[in-house]
Amino acid sequence: MSNFDDETAVEAIGDGRWRARISAEWSIGDVPNGGYVQAVALAAIRRSVPHPHPLTVTTHFLRPCAMNADAVVEVEPIRSGRTVSTASARLVQDGKERLRVLATYGDLAAGVGPSAVSGQAPSLGSPDTYAGRTETGLLPGAAGPRPTIAGRIDVRLDPAWVAGMGTPGGGTTAFKAWIRFSDGRPSDAQSLPLLVDALPPAIFGVVAPEWVPTIELTTHVRALPAPGWLRAVVSTRFLVDGLFDEECELWDADDRLVAMSRQLARVLSPPKESVAAART
Amino acid sequence: MSNFDDETAVEAIGDGRWRARISAEWSIGDVPNGGYVQAVALAAIRRSVPHPHPLTVTTHFLRPCAMNADAVVEVEPIRSGRTVSTASARLVQDGKERLRVLATYGDLAAGVGPSAVSGQAPSLGSPDTYAGRTETGLLPGAAGPRPTIAGRIDVRLDPAWVAGMGTPGGGTTAFKAWIRFSDGRPSDAQSLPLLVDALPPAIFGVVAPEWVPTIELTTHVRALPAPGWLRAVVSTRFLVDGLFDEECELWDADDRLVAMSRQLARVLSPPKESVAAART
Repeated sequence: MSNFDDETAVEAIGDGRWRARISAEWSIGDVPNGGYVQAVALAAIRRSVPHPHPLTVTTHFLRPCAMNADAVVEVEPIRSGRTVSTASARLVQDGKERLRVLATYGDLAAGVGPSAVSGQAPSLGSPDTYAGRTETGLLPGAAGPRPTIAGRIDVRLDPAWVAGMGTPGGGTTAFKAWIRFSDGRPSDAQSLPLLVDALPPAIFGVVAPEWVPTIELTTHVRALPAPGWLRAVVSTRFLVDGLFDEECELWDADDRLVAMSRQLARVLSPPKESVAAART
Repeated sequence: MSNFDDETAVEAIGDGRWRARISAEWSIGDVPNGGYVQAVALAAIRRSVPHPHPLTVTTHFLRPCAMNADAVVEVEPIRSGRTVSTASARLVQDGKERLRVLATYGDLAAGVGPSAVSGQAPSLGSPDTYAGRTETGLLPGAAGPRPTIAGRIDVRLDPAWVAGMGTPGGGTTAFKAWIRFSDGRPSDAQSLPLLVDALPPAIFGVVAPEWVPTIELTTHVRALPAPGWLRAVVSTRFLVDGLFDEECELWDADDRLVAMSRQLARVLSPPKESVAAART
């Protein structure tokens, strides 16, 4: 077992309900990472549908989850067909729903049909020349408690992006990075919806690195990843009145796109004047 | 009233349930357009939540809807907060759920917080020099019944993209277009989640123009549109084993991004050898 598998484990308690424990080891500031709590809900869905891989997952984050605390995931199977199954799940703590997931599962190993790819795999420097999270200090949750997720997920950031942060007019809302589990667990279809959400927000290029709550996150898992580091391309293009999109692509060692995500999130703090012009 | 408002109208029948009529005037081939039936479900959600605008909407399409037929929309309010409300809806015909929607609403006119935009508004030729849907013939549903949506929504396609279609190796999976309602109804936050799905699929640049069912569609409404034509930027980058992404951005006359969407859809027919290399 790995940290990911241990800390997203669910136990059936009947009637489509599953008991889980929300770990404190995947935090951003003083809340658990959204991708992590989503992974707990997905662990329950996976055991409730006949298809193995999450093709498309959408989560609406309603309230932060409590850490070191139990949770119940309630799964509603919606439809199971020959090629795909759709289900919904709600994760509840203390009687309050924390997140709602809507997902369609399929089998990425059984795909048939044409292929035509125009997207280009990103090119990055070696992970050894990129900046680890602890070296950069400010990413993420610099103003609050240490983000424990830094111990679970190994992230290496483009040093040029990191250097531009905090420089008036010098920061950009796009960067590339390497990402993998710290304990050596290979990435797979179950963990990609977490990994797309486990990098520092690209918006930190132009706003102070504080908690930016996600309203909604949608991930498409597009291929089963090859072993090894994944390359990430992260960008935000439209911060408008405090709301922003963030996109993440993950590419594997075989130059295949394995996941793409988009989220809608919100800047809680800084006033308009603290925001430098965004460039990507 | 407009065609859109008439044909997405819902009537309360109690207990969070709403009665609707699925029109035959928004078809693609012999099924109603997904964005249209989604708009029927959203009409019921809108009347069930305190906030006016859909900020983020995800729909999983389970089965095609029947046209010229009644439907019931069942709305589940999930959470209402100060700034946003989240709700789910299921649209049912003949006892079978056809689509499931998960949406968070807010107030786009009440936004506070910083702005920083790096995305660029697209430049297009005049709508008069672009190709109407009926002129192009093949878009969409060329192999089946006339797509009635062509009478409801006025679309003008980049003639260079249209010319490349069907040319071996010459088609691309990206195009620009103009779009507006045919009856002059202004676009607004309620109708943008339909308009992002009302253009021909960009995948028609490399596969035969037949029905490509959407598995999941997510739309972010980012601003209230100015009156007049909208400009659309549509692209597909990853067709893999028959599954593909499609992205759409809609821009208003004031050069503001008003909506962005991504969907995961499926090519039903053609064999691998009929697919030209994709270029965007």
